[in-house]
Order: sequence, then C-alpha cells, then structure tokens
Amino acid sequence: MRNILLVGAGKSSVSLINYFSENAQAENWQLTVADSSLKAAQDKIKGLQFCSAIELDINNNDLLKAATDKADLVISLLPAHMHIGVAKNCLQLKKHLVTASYISAEMAELNEHARKKNLVFMNECGLDPGLDHMSAMKIINQVKADGGEIISFKSFCGGLVAPESNDNPWGYKFSWNPRNVILAGQSTAQYIEDGNLKFIPYNRLFLQTETIEIDGLGKFDAYANRDSLSYRKPYDLENIKTILRGTLRNQGYCKAWNVLVKLGLTDDSYKVNIENLTYKQLVDAYLPNGSKSIKNKLADFMAADADAEAIDKVEWLGLLSDIKINAANASPAQMLQNLLEEKWKLQPTDKDMIVMQHLFTVVNISGEQKKITSSLVVKGSDSVHTAMAKTVGLPAAIAAKVILNNKIKTRGVLMPIEQEVYNPVLSELEKHNIVFAEKELG
Amino acid sequence: MRNILLVGAGKSSVSLINYFSENAQAENWQLTVADSSLKAAQDKIKGLQFCSAIELDINNNDLLKAATDKADLVISLLPAHMHIGVAKNCLQLKKHLVTASYISAEMAELNEHARKKNLVFMNECGLDPGLDHMSAMKIINQVKADGGEIISFKSFCGGLVAPESNDNPWGYKFSWNPRNVILAGQSTAQYIEDGNLKFIPYNRLFLQTETIEIDGLGKFDAYANRDSLSYRKPYDLENIKTILRGTLRNQGYCKAWNVLVKLGLTDDSYKVNIENLTYKQLVDAYLPNGSKSIKNKLADFMAADADAEAIDKVEWLGLLSDIKINAANASPAQMLQNLLEEKWKLQPTDKDMIVMQHLFTVVNISGEQKKITSSLVVKGSDSVHTAMAKTVGLPAAIAAKVILNNKIKTRGVLMPIEQEVYNPVLSELEKHNIVFAEKELG
Repeated sequence: MRNILLVGAGKSSVSLINYFSENAQAENWQLTVADSSLKAAQDKIKGLQFCSAIELDINNNDLLKAATDKADLVISLLPAHMHIGVAKNCLQLKKHLVTASYISAEMAELNEHARKKNLVFMNECGLDPGLDHMSAMKIINQVKADGGEIISFKSFCGGLVAPESNDNPWGYKFSWNPRNVILAGQSTAQYIEDGNLKFIPYNRLFLQTETIEIDGLGKFDAYANRDSLSYRKPYDLENIKTILRGTLRNQGYCKAWNVLVKLGLTDDSYKVNIENLTYKQLVDAYLPNGSKSIKNKLADFMAADADAEAIDKVEWLGLLSDIKINAANASPAQMLQNLLEEKWKLQPTDKDMIVMQHLFTVVNISGEQKKITSSLVVKGSDSVHTAMAKTVGLPAAIAAKVILNNKIKTRGVLMPIEQEVYNPVLSELEKHNIVFAEKELG
Repeated sequence: MRNILLVGAGKSSVSLINYFSENAQAENWQLTVADSSLKAAQDKIKGLQFCSAIELDINNNDLLKAATDKADLVISLLPAHMHIGVAKNCLQLKKHLVTASYISAEMAELNEHARKKNLVFMNECGLDPGLDHMSAMKIINQVKADGGEIISFKSFCGGLVAPESNDNPWGYKFSWNPRNVILAGQSTAQYIEDGNLKFIPYNRLFLQTETIEIDGLGKFDAYANRDSLSYRKPYDLENIKTILRGTLRNQGYCKAWNVLVKLGLTDDSYKVNIENLTYKQLVDAYLPNGSKSIKNKLADFMAADADAEAIDKVEWLGLLSDIKINAANASPAQMLQNLLEEKWKLQPTDKDMIVMQHLFTVVNISGEQKKITSSLVVKGSDSVHTAMAKTVGLPAAIAAKVILNNKIKTRGVLMPIEQEVYNPVLSELEKHNIVFAEKELG
C-alpha cells in the first residue's frame, strides 16, 4: 500500500482526486485529502473509494508532520507561498513532493538537500506552469535530436470560457483566482524579438497585443507575460532570437481591459474611503468634470485608444451605472473585482476552456526554415469539473504516479522538462483527451 | 544645561546644527550629534561651539538608550522608518522628540502613551511636511476667527534649483533623495474638485498638470500629490469643496518626465539582467523595432503626448546615446537614477530653491468671495547650505526650542497645526529670511 497525502482541496483538486481514486486499486494507493476545511475535503471525496479526508491547519506543524509521516508522497495544491512549509517537512521525513507552482527562491534552496536525501520535489507540474513546459520541451528536444535549431519560440495560454457557454461581450468568465486576473501584468513584460530585448510596461500592455489563431476556434488576443527571458535557460534556448510568452483572451477583451487600466481602476495600492459610492461615481472620479454623459466623457477620454465596442463592454459590466459598490475602504481593484465576480461568474452548467499554443520557427539540419505549432484545446464538463481543474490536476497526479513507480531518475527540486517526466505524463494525458495537435508548415 | 541629542547627521542636518550652536550659550544648550558615521557627525560640527559628535549605530539599542538617557530632548533626522526605535526609547526614558517625517501608523500608536507620560512627540516639523502645515493653518485659523469659510485650498511645493544655477533644459537638480524623485507619484493621486472626488493614476499624472505662477519667478508645472484627502481632517476642512496638494517643477519638466513614464523607465519592480547595455539600447527595448533613428522612433511613439522640447530633454539626459549603463542587474528606475545623479547633480556653488504656494478661496462673514495666496521662496547659499537643509532643519530646531522652553501645552504624538507651535516657529523663521508673502485678491 502506497499512501499519498494531498494538501489543499480547492477547485483544482477535483480531477486529481478522481484520478487517484480510479487508479487506487490497480496501483495499491490510499489517498488522504487534507484541508483547513474538513467539509471541503469531505465534499471532494464523496462517493470515491480509497480516499479519506482530514482537517489540517497548515500552520499547525505537528499535525502537518504527522500527516506527512504517514505518506509516501505529498502533493501540495496550497497557494504557492505555503509550499515551503510542506517541503521542509517532506525533506525532514524523506518524502517526495509534487506541486503545480513556480519554483520559489526558498524552494530552489532545498535542491541540494533534496538531492542528498534522494528525493524528487517536482514543481511546476500543472497547466501553466506544467503542460507548457512538457509540450514545449517535447518539440524542442525532437528538433535538437534531428539536428535542427529553434530560432523563434512563442507560447500562449488562456483559461477561457467555451464558445457554447460564452454569453457575454467580454468572452470571459472566471475559471481561476479572480484577483490574479484583475492584477495581471502589473509589471513590465520582457521578451526578445529578432535578437532585440523588448519591454512593454503595464500602461500599454493591453494595447500592444498579438493576434493568435487556433484551428476551429478562430482568433484570440494575446498580451505578453511578465518574464519570457527566464525560460531561455531551463529550455536550453540561450541564443534564441525571438522568445515570447503571452496570455490569450477572446478578441476585443484587451482593448476593453485597457480602458480599465488607463482609467486607473486596476490599482490595488490605495483605498477609496467614501461611503455609498456607486460605480458610475467611481469611474467619474477618473474623468474630467463636465456636463456630458459619463459614457460620452469616457469615449472622449479614451479617444483613439478605444472603439465603441470597448466602451460598450465597459458599460455592460455596470461600471457606468448607479449600482452601489459593495465594499468599504477597498482599493479600486477590489471594487472592480467585486463587480466582475458577479458578471463573469461561471454558472453551474457553464463549460470553461483551456487553450494553449506554441509557435516555433526552426532551421533544420539542411538549413531549411519551417514552422511548427503545437496546440491544445480542453473543455470542461461543468463549473466543477472544469478544464482548468483537469489540466492543473491531471499532470500533477500522473507525475506523482511516475515518481511513486520509481521512473524518475533525477533528484532534487525539479520542473518537468526531462523526457523521463514529460513522455509518460503527456502520453497518459492523451487517454484523458488532453492532446496536443502538432503541425508543421513548410 | 539642557542636552539635545540629534540622531542622523545627513544633508538636512546642517542648518539645524548651526542653529543649535548659535543659540547654545543664550539657551544653555549642549548638542550631541550622533550618526552611524562618526566622520559625518564630526564634519557637521567642525568649528562649532557647544557641540560634540558620537558614533551611533541605530540598531545598537544599548548605545541609543545611553545617548537618549543623557538628553532632555531628541531630534531624529533618520530615514522615516527608523524613527520608531528612537521614539520607543524616548517614551521609556521620558524624553521629548522632534522629527520632520509624516506620522507613521506605529508612531500614531504611541500617542496615548506619550500623553500619559507628559511628553511632546512633535512630528512633520520640516518643510513638507512642516512649513506647509504651519503656514496653511495660520491662514485657515485667521479666516475662521474672522467668521469666514474656506471653500477651496490648493497647496504646492517644490525643491528646485535657483534660476541663477539653472543651466540644464529640465530646470531641475537634486537637492534631496534622488530615488524619491524617480519613483514619485507611482500610486493614484486623490483630491477633490468642486465637490467631486478625483483620481489621477500614474499613467497620466505628468500629463494632467496645473500651471502655478509665483511672483518674480514666473510659471511652474504642478502635478498632483498622492493623497490630498487626508489633509481635510487635521486641517478641520471636512466639508471643503476643492482640496489639492501638488509638487512644483519648472515648466516643461512634467511633459518630458511623462516620456520616461510612458516608456516604462521609472519601473522599479523588475531587474534588467543584460551585460554591457547602453542607454540607447535600454530605451530601444521599449520601442517598436524599425529602421528610423531612435529619436524619431521615440517621437513617433509619443505622438501628441510629447513635443520636440520634451524629446530634446530626454536626449539631453543621454538616454538616446551609447553611454554604457553602469549598473548590473538593476531595475530600469535604478539605471535611470544612475544617469540622473550625474546629470542633475547640484554643483558645489549651485544654489537650490524651495518654492511653496497656498491658494485659498474664502467666503467671508459678509458672504463675499475672495482669494488669498501665501507664497514662500527660499534660496540656498551653496550645495551644502541648501534651501532644503534650511527649510527642513530650522522649523525642527525652533520647534525643539519652543518645547524645551515649555511653551507647548499639548501632549502626545503631534503635528505643528496648533498656534502654540506655528506662531513662534513662523515668527522666528522670519529672522532667517524664511518669510511667507500673503496676498488677498478681491
């Protein structure tokens, strides 16, 4: 019997828990789901075999230690900054660890210790980071094995709403942490284009966008992610001429979001301490005084930076209406989030959709240039069994299986960029209809 | 003999130390100047009577306590976040305290404790905050005493270079912390205009400026400060229709600084890790690729948001040149600061200049509306005896004298908004040629 401890039973744990339960008999597994809310943990394992639920306050290190001690492998789906406490217990008690979060500086410091204790701390093993690494590295390593060179790599990912559930002008509903969507991009984006270092600051991030086309789905807006440069080293693309990572949104989203950025509504650094404020009054505070309607004032203010559709999208949110703001002494970003959480709520039967696309330009061994694309589209089943939960949870779950079955030879604090990880994970994901479509264009 | 301890012998301590030395015999004072650098403290008291210098690491609480114990009053000119340690010792050892910094939340918490121990902790007693409070409250209280009401209050202050030392196109040289100049305004400004709440986010702070005229000096740009709303309560102007505080710069500065903001060069939130980068390459990273000269690309990029003069100012800084950036793995803001510290250096014989102006609109007891202005212009003598050092140090020094002579009846954590403080301070400052010119306009 191999015991698996899952810490954190949030939204993204659903598919992961199902996977463990379905494979428990064959793999001789027992899963313990731990959460600060016992009810959340119990709800997630309802009707499932080989699973038990426990209440676990992550700040109670004695309880965490006891639970860790009983496990052969720990998966943490806690918020990213909480992994380090779990990791330190794993180190002390000699347990493997899997997370779906970026390797923090603190986590990176455990590398040598984990290696010496013969442990695998596999991080960045969800969707993004996670599937992006695996699917990109598969192509990068193939091209190199064939004697080719990658001269351009652009990669885009978006957590969106499926077309059949898209019933609002923004083409967006929340399938993950709303706060991260509101505050997205609030530092200068960095990338490389044709050998030149390129920066896009927040004030024009949603104006300087690209258009990406996905077969069968049409065109999407893409805005640049914060740091594309940091991928050169782990991907072994140190001399690449073009590297850019970005986030996908439905067409028109970025131009409308830019209105909110230019207004100043995404600012989370100060609090508005006015009682009984309406959204119209809030928006008006950013506009010049004047006698025109607020919609006309907003259009004048944006001038060429917004079209009528963008202004209509802003109006649709209720930002130009007399709706009372239900937040006292909050930042404009929090006030905006309160409104968006209502307007962009994934309804029970709504399906979300994950879209990922890598675009490579390659020079092959004969010196010929060609383009390779690798695209993924995954739709959710409903607002609980989301594409987001599948694509975050299943890679982590399968990686855990591969580790438990001793198929990973590398040790230390890792990300899934080696064949020994991405080959079995990507191949098993195909059975769950998570399939990258690879295409070559002369 | 009354002992005064000054903690922090930085640039702004010069005039304060001179004041204490000059008045030491008459007032029976002995001043101890403490700094982490013994040399800095010794340099400041060179040739002065009734002064001694000691080395004091503020993190060594035993030393700080011993020095505090010998004093009757402590003045802290340390960086603002360090006052709290000094204040706690003052509380324990029952010593009065004077600072020139805003009252922090931690400092405010000491109010009741200080009151109970019969102590004066007088903060915000420099230039801005300091002289702004005193000179404004003098007029506000006069108007109210005469039965009038203040319906509009705008207040501006700038630490500038004197016209006779102004030999660069920006009309600016550093007379205080350069970092604060580079990062100024990076949160949304809040004020009230004609009864309406108004916000200006950073992305257009240096575009949405006012023009202020000072007699004998001409016109200045003024950009809004972060939080003008917080002045309503201490100034007892809770129902005022217009309240705005702003920062003065020479005309044209703001339009040119906006180029740096729009480019993204004032971002301090990420590091550029490229070796041997030139300033031209850095600026080019923010611009679209293209074959035009960088100056033309920049002008195209700014379009209507910058005129030729603004672009010329940016060029004058060296930002479009092949000068190597002398900073490794630094933020763009730090790289910009390195350049500006050279270009905007106050030369030994340069004179700086402080300009402050309050503009009131008042309705008097007969219902008549009139305007009152109160303006201050102070020039420095050279790059050591600056107007900044005078206007920061002398108000603090005189407030200390008034406290030592038991003329302040209020107790607790205070700011200089009561007559018992501002009357004696403003009146003694006049002897030092720090004089507000008050004017009434029908």
